[in-house]
Amino acid sequence: MKVLLIAGPNLNILGQRQPEIYGTQTLAEIEELVRKRAEEWGVSIRPYHSNHEGAIIDFIQQEGGADGLIINPGALSHYGYALRDAIEAFAGGKMEVHLSNVHARESFRQNLVTAPVMDGVVCGLGWRGYLAALDALVPMLQERAQKQVKP
Amino acid sequence: MKVLLIAGPNLNILGQRQPEIYGTQTLAEIEELVRKRAEEWGVSIRPYHSNHEGAIIDFIQQEGGADGLIINPGALSHYGYALRDAIEAFAGGKMEVHLSNVHARESFRQNLVTAPVMDGVVCGLGWRGYLAALDALVPMLQERAQKQVKP
Amino acid sequence: MKVLLIAGPNLNILGQRQPEIYGTQTLAEIEELVRKRAEEWGVSIRPYHSNHEGAIIDFIQQEGGADGLIINPGALSHYGYALRDAIEAFAGGKMEVHLSNVHARESFRQNLVTAPVMDGVVCGLGWRGYLAALDALVPMLQERAQKQVKP
Amino acid sequence: MKVLLIAGPNLNILGQRQPEIYGTQTLAEIEELVRKRAEEWGVSIRPYHSNHEGAIIDFIQQEGGADGLIINPGALSHYGYALRDAIEAFAGGKMEVHLSNVHARESFRQNLVTAPVMDGVVCGLGWRGYLAALDALVPMLQERAQKQVKP
Amino acid sequence: MKVLLIAGPNLNILGQRQPEIYGTQTLAEIEELVRKRAEEWGVSIRPYHSNHEGAIIDFIQQEGGADGLIINPGALSHYGYALRDAIEAFAGGKMEVHLSNVHARESFRQNLVTAPVMDGVVCGLGWRGYLAALDALVPMLQERAQKQVKP
Amino acid sequence: MKVLLIAGPNLNILGQRQPEIYGTQTLAEIEELVRKRAEEWGVSIRPYHSNHEGAIIDFIQQEGGADGLIINPGALSHYGYALRDAIEAFAGGKMEVHLSNVHARESFRQNLVTAPVMDGVVCGLGWRGYLAALDALVPMLQERAQKQVKP
Amino acid sequence: MKVLLIAGPNLNILGQRQPEIYGTQTLAEIEELVRKRAEEWGVSIRPYHSNHEGAIIDFIQQEGGADGLIINPGALSHYGYALRDAIEAFAGGKMEVHLSNVHARESFRQNLVTAPVMDGVVCGLGWRGYLAALDALVPMLQERAQKQVKP
Amino acid sequence: MKVLLIAGPNLNILGQRQPEIYGTQTLAEIEELVRKRAEEWGVSIRPYHSNHEGAIIDFIQQEGGADGLIINPGALSHYGYALRDAIEAFAGGKMEVHLSNVHARESFRQNLVTAPVMDGVVCGLGWRGYLAALDALVPMLQERAQKQVKP
Amino acid sequence: MKVLLIAGPNLNILGQRQPEIYGTQTLAEIEELVRKRAEEWGVSIRPYHSNHEGAIIDFIQQEGGADGLIINPGALSHYGYALRDAIEAFAGGKMEVHLSNVHARESFRQNLVTAPVMDGVVCGLGWRGYLAALDALVPMLQERAQKQVKP
Amino acid sequence: MKVLLIAGPNLNILGQRQPEIYGTQTLAEIEELVRKRAEEWGVSIRPYHSNHEGAIIDFIQQEGGADGLIINPGALSHYGYALRDAIEAFAGGKMEVHLSNVHARESFRQNLVTAPVMDGVVCGLGWRGYLAALDALVPMLQERAQKQVKP
Amino acid sequence: MKVLLIAGPNLNILGQRQPEIYGTQTLAEIEELVRKRAEEWGVSIRPYHSNHEGAIIDFIQQEGGADGLIINPGALSHYGYALRDAIEAFAGGKMEVHLSNVHARESFRQNLVTAPVMDGVVCGLGWRGYLAALDALVPMLQERAQKQVKP
Amino acid sequence: MKVLLIAGPNLNILGQRQPEIYGTQTLAEIEELVRKRAEEWGVSIRPYHSNHEGAIIDFIQQEGGADGLIINPGALSHYGYALRDAIEAFAGGKMEVHLSNVHARESFRQNLVTAPVMDGVVCGLGWRGYLAALDALVPMLQERAQKQVKP
Repeated sequence: MKVLLIAGPNLNILGQRQPEIYGTQTLAEIEELVRKRAEEWGVSIRPYHSNHEGAIIDFIQQEGGADGLIINPGALSHYGYALRDAIEAFAGGKMEVHLSNVHARESFRQNLVTAPVMDGVVCGLGWRGYLAALDALVPMLQERAQKQVKP
Repeated sequence: MKVLLIAGPNLNILGQRQPEIYGTQTLAEIEELVRKRAEEWGVSIRPYHSNHEGAIIDFIQQEGGADGLIINPGALSHYGYALRDAIEAFAGGKMEVHLSNVHARESFRQNLVTAPVMDGVVCGLGWRGYLAALDALVPMLQERAQKQVKP
Repeated sequence: MKVLLIAGPNLNILGQRQPEIYGTQTLAEIEELVRKRAEEWGVSIRPYHSNHEGAIIDFIQQEGGADGLIINPGALSHYGYALRDAIEAFAGGKMEVHLSNVHARESFRQNLVTAPVMDGVVCGLGWRGYLAALDALVPMLQERAQKQVKP
Repeated sequence: MKVLLIAGPNLNILGQRQPEIYGTQTLAEIEELVRKRAEEWGVSIRPYHSNHEGAIIDFIQQEGGADGLIINPGALSHYGYALRDAIEAFAGGKMEVHLSNVHARESFRQNLVTAPVMDGVVCGLGWRGYLAALDALVPMLQERAQKQVKP
Repeated sequence: MKVLLIAGPNLNILGQRQPEIYGTQTLAEIEELVRKRAEEWGVSIRPYHSNHEGAIIDFIQQEGGADGLIINPGALSHYGYALRDAIEAFAGGKMEVHLSNVHARESFRQNLVTAPVMDGVVCGLGWRGYLAALDALVPMLQERAQKQVKP
Repeated sequence: MKVLLIAGPNLNILGQRQPEIYGTQTLAEIEELVRKRAEEWGVSIRPYHSNHEGAIIDFIQQEGGADGLIINPGALSHYGYALRDAIEAFAGGKMEVHLSNVHARESFRQNLVTAPVMDGVVCGLGWRGYLAALDALVPMLQERAQKQVKP
Repeated sequence: MKVLLIAGPNLNILGQRQPEIYGTQTLAEIEELVRKRAEEWGVSIRPYHSNHEGAIIDFIQQEGGADGLIINPGALSHYGYALRDAIEAFAGGKMEVHLSNVHARESFRQNLVTAPVMDGVVCGLGWRGYLAALDALVPMLQERAQKQVKP
Repeated sequence: MKVLLIAGPNLNILGQRQPEIYGTQTLAEIEELVRKRAEEWGVSIRPYHSNHEGAIIDFIQQEGGADGLIINPGALSHYGYALRDAIEAFAGGKMEVHLSNVHARESFRQNLVTAPVMDGVVCGLGWRGYLAALDALVPMLQERAQKQVKP
Repeated sequence: MKVLLIAGPNLNILGQRQPEIYGTQTLAEIEELVRKRAEEWGVSIRPYHSNHEGAIIDFIQQEGGADGLIINPGALSHYGYALRDAIEAFAGGKMEVHLSNVHARESFRQNLVTAPVMDGVVCGLGWRGYLAALDALVPMLQERAQKQVKP
Repeated sequence: MKVLLIAGPNLNILGQRQPEIYGTQTLAEIEELVRKRAEEWGVSIRPYHSNHEGAIIDFIQQEGGADGLIINPGALSHYGYALRDAIEAFAGGKMEVHLSNVHARESFRQNLVTAPVMDGVVCGLGWRGYLAALDALVPMLQERAQKQVKP
Repeated sequence: MKVLLIAGPNLNILGQRQPEIYGTQTLAEIEELVRKRAEEWGVSIRPYHSNHEGAIIDFIQQEGGADGLIINPGALSHYGYALRDAIEAFAGGKMEVHLSNVHARESFRQNLVTAPVMDGVVCGLGWRGYLAALDALVPMLQERAQKQVKP
Repeated sequence: MKVLLIAGPNLNILGQRQPEIYGTQTLAEIEELVRKRAEEWGVSIRPYHSNHEGAIIDFIQQEGGADGLIINPGALSHYGYALRDAIEAFAGGKMEVHLSNVHARESFRQNLVTAPVMDGVVCGLGWRGYLAALDALVPMLQERAQKQVKP
């Protein structure tokens, strides 16, 4: 089982950027934590980051055969309709993660345009939100696989 | 460490109510799953359900000494400002859980009035969302406790 | 066949409250009129009133086996999303009745949040609206029963 | 006593048009059902249909001496302000009927511009909504007549 | 010089309809008053009334050679975009008249969709508003005619 | 009979300011035209201009005994709620005049905050709009006077 | 003379909850202060608190014979339409009190749904706001009583 | 195969009306161009024009057996909900054509109420838009016919 | 201790203007009542009235050394942002008073632009609202003074 | 004559993505169909696809000498203001094509931000929409060219 | 060359008022800085301040012959439509300056009603914003003068 | 001291694109002018242009050590929330420049999403706006540097 781990704009500067909001972990550290947890589930992780909406869409299309994706779209969450279309077209399981509780911040951050095409959305749990998403995604995918096999 | 596990209106009929949206687990089954996971963390769970906003507020005030709460406010999420005030006044950690992805449903379900006073919000992960919330809440509380002890 | 007859907040003071808008009949008188008409249809009526949204939800859940309900949600019509969820989860036929024509009153009364989950909505017919709702509900339920029996 | 029974645009194709929403009865069948019920009340019915807003206004003005009207304005319910003015100027009792529950459909159908000048509004009861409207209208008119006679 | 005098829906029942708002003059009386005043200006009046938006559009197109028009569009003022297009295409001078002060009434009456294509708008002056419109229209047309002749 | 003729901000530069919109007449010329027409009606005119909202309010209060007023509030039409209150408190007849058709201009000019407390509103007739307002105001005041005398 | 003193959701935790906003007085202390001042006026106070909207409505109906009420509806101020209806139906004098200046806080706190049915509204004066409300309510009730006695 | 070619309000004055926006072709010329192209496809055209919304609805109902329709609803595009209902009830293929690019004009022209029930919408191509609609409609209908025949 | 008592536009005509809304007291009478009550508190009052927003701003700036202000901004409450800035810059205590309950009146009166910079807001208490404001303002200022002295 | 044929985000996965909405043709197949038709017109086609808004802008600027463009902006249609600016700056003819009828889908798809700078917009005609756009674009360009040559 | 330097409400208390937002310079100091810079450009400055919108309008009209103006309208920026009209009528160059970045403050400060009639707008540069405006205004005026002279 | 000079989408075609709005200078010419002025300040300029939002974000992150930035985000100003986040995370001084007065153009250009995280915003000054921004930025940075050094 393969899961994409996608980070949108400005997530590459995690650790430096407003640590009181986003925490002190770097993106590499979070990817490492997710990779370890995935290993326990017997799942391989394919991490990716870009500040370009188009590049993330390219990546999702190229990795269309993956079983699931966990994405923190950064600010693209609030206007990235093309990214939304790409995720909607992706056949696997889909989880959106935000480090901070976007519902408690600027009003534009409460307009979530990619969330409606996700299976689940996690926000405000900090870096643990990624593990939460993974821990829910993997058994969800296993259940779906079983259903398709059975009949 | 004690964590409140609160279920709002109509969550007592889980399992029967639109299982394609809310899943087939009953509230008792979910509470049992959370209790077991909590045991692993060495945490005690205090479950509560009511269809009355006022009763949930009473409960939160009476259990004001608890370390955290995990709440699925049901439809009160969309208009329960009095509940919001009670949660805001609660000193411990706070997690909001929705079984379904509310962002993909009726527009009134996208108006989240309690979410801004939470630490984190999880939706669309089904019953696993409760475990995700707990798994993030407990270490978050431990970290906070350490910070307060240290100096 | 059993039909719930539910009255929301402030309907217990009917007869005294703004009779030029709500009429001079008391709630007991209306319940009696409905009971008599129901008798003609061979239907039993289970009347209930509460000023508590939570209590009405409790009642609907406890009487979940009833064949239908006729409800005047009072002002809960305009913000009672938890009540809406309870009614949506109720399997029987559902009618909403308002004594006055809410479309001709304050603008907040024109936001109807429970109406979308009803089978029918009647407003402005005064106490006769209850009979109208019953006279439409019973044959509708009979038709549905026949359809389910047939095949 | 004379009651106008008015059908707005597209109601002449009832029976064929989306029967899962509007039912299988034709307009003629509904008019016949209303006429029979009216006979029981000793009331004469004057049915009319047009797809032209202007023609319905003409009809209401010409029949200004009637005691009441029952109208299904079709889609004119949502923008027919001239029709609204004509109905407001009509001195008799006024009932609006919709076959389907408009509150549960497209958002434009929830903008009701004629409803505020009605005595009552009935929706979602199917063809029985017409009988409900009549059964409420006639005694309402009788009461009004008595009041005007007495003093 | 020829001026069209157009009355929209429900203006044919002037005198009976809410006289405290619209006054006690009939449409015929108003037309007569306008005709007399027009005579003083040496202008012929072509009165027309219809409850049909389409018929008024037909009339304006057929009388496209007239020098000006004075129209009270009735409730079409608030949604008659097709009428607006017809008036915009009319080459002559254009005046809109409302008997009542629409700015002091229901909010839907403050949405004026034909007004933006007029030369002038008069409201709240009662039947005198028609004379006001004529007294401003005729010299305005004379000035325009002079300008076109000169060079 | 005395009528106030009030000009709001920037109307003192009429003639120079955008003559294609506001015409070539100066304010003094318009006042003279109104005065002459008023003389024919046996009415005295009290002209006033200020760029200060407060000064216009002062004037209206000081001249509270006048029989009527004709005001072009200039841009105060769109936000002058204090002026609105002053005009509402004025007991006489009230006419609002705009030289241009405000409905055909910037959207902020279509928000009319003083218009709802007027008897009538005239716009787009150029300087003739003042005569139109006067010609409607005087007989309206005469009729009111007669009514008060009679009984 | 009897005056109800009603406290809505979360006001029972006054003193602990955000004292920089709500002050350090407990609800019992405020009730005592009001009772003393009432004694000076020769008025008896009937204090009541509940976190349940329905219970407050029950209380107001049961105490319908009281001469006046002073209510701090807490967050119900912003969505409690059923409470609004109960207060509107209450025949006595009505005052709404907020400890903090709600106009200076979150935008949802500026939507006041019960305020329109009150006689007066006081906010931002802290606990003194209750005394202010009482000092205005009692003479207002005395004046009303005198008016009703006289003729 | 028969296709209706329907022109709404004011399209009969094409050629004269704002030719810089709508072009210089008359409606008759456009109908002739469509007829010729239809001939090449072996399709008969049934042209119709009316300024009356009701008449267009009548026409669509009477010609309900046609295989498709191409309609330029004129300004009815922006408020003609009754026309929308009639078109929705029409079983054949449906194309909406606008001569000008409505998205580049007044904001009210960007509210398209009939477009959601169409198969396709073409705007801004001038008279060629009709040919474009026909060239897409005919093969679309042929494909549909084939699908229905096959199984 | 010195307190400014400021009255905005149209408050100088109190007593005459809509006494059913604003009461029968004149501004001078209210100022006298406030002065007497202030005397009891040992406070001097500096009354001021203007219909000019600018003049009130001038006054507040000139009297910047006062300890507090009580202002009824009249209609400036709804759009006087410059006044708001002046009050915000004033260092003393600030109370806003409205004679009527603005929440129960026209919708524009519910947009309160100066209220957010006040310490407290009182409305609907009639002239007693001024005393209420004073009775809350003075001890509030005394408390503040004590706090500043102490440390 | 050279025409750009531009495909925005996610159009490269046509054929696989929701074929019930977008059809079964691949982008390559559509490009081939357009190229063939263009050949009949004697026009050369320059196809381009990117998931990057910036890349499409680069392409349009580099090919600024082309005679026209046909673009399906994908989801950029709904927020791509930078793309809009690039198209507005392009001197040639401009056509926007959508495979599906965007007016019948999610509300965000009805916000068209590039459409206002186009010559024409075609939607819902499937792949034939591209041919329709080409068949209208080429003669439009020929006409423009003739006009520029003539004088 | 003469340039008006206009300061709106509350700018006369610069230096004292929220120096963390507006800086510590007084208005006199800023005027002095501008005068010096203007001297370098060979331009004379005519400074003016008022808290009265009307007075600023008077000043602009009286100084209508000036070559340009630099204005900080203070809070009038957000509702001063009469000031806007006066500035629009001013023939010279026009610059609006705000000391703070209004886009980063309260939402009402982001509604800029005078900005649309300016040549340029500068905000957030503190007192240097005035020099920036002057440095751009003078050469802009020189260029315009040259253009008018040349042909 | 190093200052980034960033140009967003479509600014590379300056000089050709709507010169009546954007002026006749090319981007290279503007960069040259800024470089010269910077030299006078002893500041080095690092110019950058891209049509890709992602590329601009990459650039800002890579040049995170610069002392300030001057950016014209082009149309990204109106929807580029990811760019906003990148700029907010940039530690140096920040200026936004628009060549045209965006407040006087299409309404979408008045929604400024990057402006709230800037130190200052300049618009409508043409190419001189860049110099204005630089002339304000450099001393502002010098002051900040001094403050940090001192204590």
